[in-house]
Amino acid sequence: MAYVDIVTALAIIQFIFFGAQVAKARGKYGIKAPSITGNEVFERHFRVQQNTLEVLVLVIPALYLFSRYYNPLWAAGLGVVYLAGRQLYAINYVKDPAKRGPGYGLTVLPILILVLGFGFGAIRRLAWP
Amino acid sequence: MAYVDIVTALAIIQFIFFGAQVAKARGKYGIKAPSITGNEVFERHFRVQQNTLEVLVLVIPALYLFSRYYNPLWAAGLGVVYLAGRQLYAINYVKDPAKRGPGYGLTVLPILILVLGFGFGAIRRLAWP
Amino acid sequence: MAYVDIVTALAIIQFIFFGAQVAKARGKYGIKAPSITGNEVFERHFRVQQNTLEVLVLVIPALYLFSRYYNPLWAAGLGVVYLAGRQLYAINYVKDPAKRGPGYGLTVLPILILVLGFGFGAIRRLAWP
Repeated sequence: MAYVDIVTALAIIQFIFFGAQVAKARGKYGIKAPSITGNEVFERHFRVQQNTLEVLVLVIPALYLFSRYYNPLWAAGLGVVYLAGRQLYAINYVKDPAKRGPGYGLTVLPILILVLGFGFGAIRRLAWP
Repeated sequence: MAYVDIVTALAIIQFIFFGAQVAKARGKYGIKAPSITGNEVFERHFRVQQNTLEVLVLVIPALYLFSRYYNPLWAAGLGVVYLAGRQLYAINYVKDPAKRGPGYGLTVLPILILVLGFGFGAIRRLAWP
Repeated sequence: MAYVDIVTALAIIQFIFFGAQVAKARGKYGIKAPSITGNEVFERHFRVQQNTLEVLVLVIPALYLFSRYYNPLWAAGLGVVYLAGRQLYAINYVKDPAKRGPGYGLTVLPILILVLGFGFGAIRRLAWP
């Protein structure tokens, strides 16, 4: 599981980094809390972080539940695809939100494989114990 | 735990489905990223997804921690109530946000039972080991 | 792990409490769903809850992964710092968002220690098994 743990640590650090970008953009564009609108570039950073929250919540349990049924190294590999996809998503979203598609796909695809994987693993275990 | 794993897989798939509804509403009502406002129906779909994120973060760990102290089948059963409550919440919220109460209650009630359950389980284990 | 489980239960209950404050502020200031803006005090309560979601997602897995490599009592202790920091953050944010810094720091610091801790623990286990 140590490989999966390292991927999880990196996913959390990546999310904290996106949060720091939001804080920096708050200062740079003068968006005072609790406001979350008012500058297009700030809003892009904010949406990158919020969207990452939405997938981080899925990928962490999915990595560990997949590892219960299959080789944890496969989980870690899918986690690396997630990390790369998320980085691509963030870079492209801030440049041009219309180009966020490929990075988003590379984030959601490994999550779907993990979730369908452990879901089928659990069903199989119940059906053929 | 396989039953709990299946509930978790379903909860994640339900959340991804709500996310797809938001993406669809973005296209339908012409709300371009990073904007998250501008059309009432889009905002309803968006709030359904965001609110689901808020409870998904609670229900996943609560299911597994409850299963440490009690029968995992009870956890899975409470998870099924959560899934049904969430579906009701989403359907009613999009129709009329004022009617989101019952679905919300059916989501939060099983979460409260799970959390208070494993919290008391942990206290009991420390007090009478 | 029972101590860590109690901290997790408290972190979840704290988050549900912040959510209840948002619901109360919705009523008090007449902010009807799906709207999330329109009154400064409502927006402060809303941002407290949203920001807590962002850190709750990190602290729960971090507590358990840290406990794999080190004494779970240390994890629970860091979790108590998180709980206190979060409470301070919420109280100060609602009073004056500009004063949210110290509570935020006291939330993120224990999370960083937990994440870097289990990350290094995992690397060490792979390097010197």
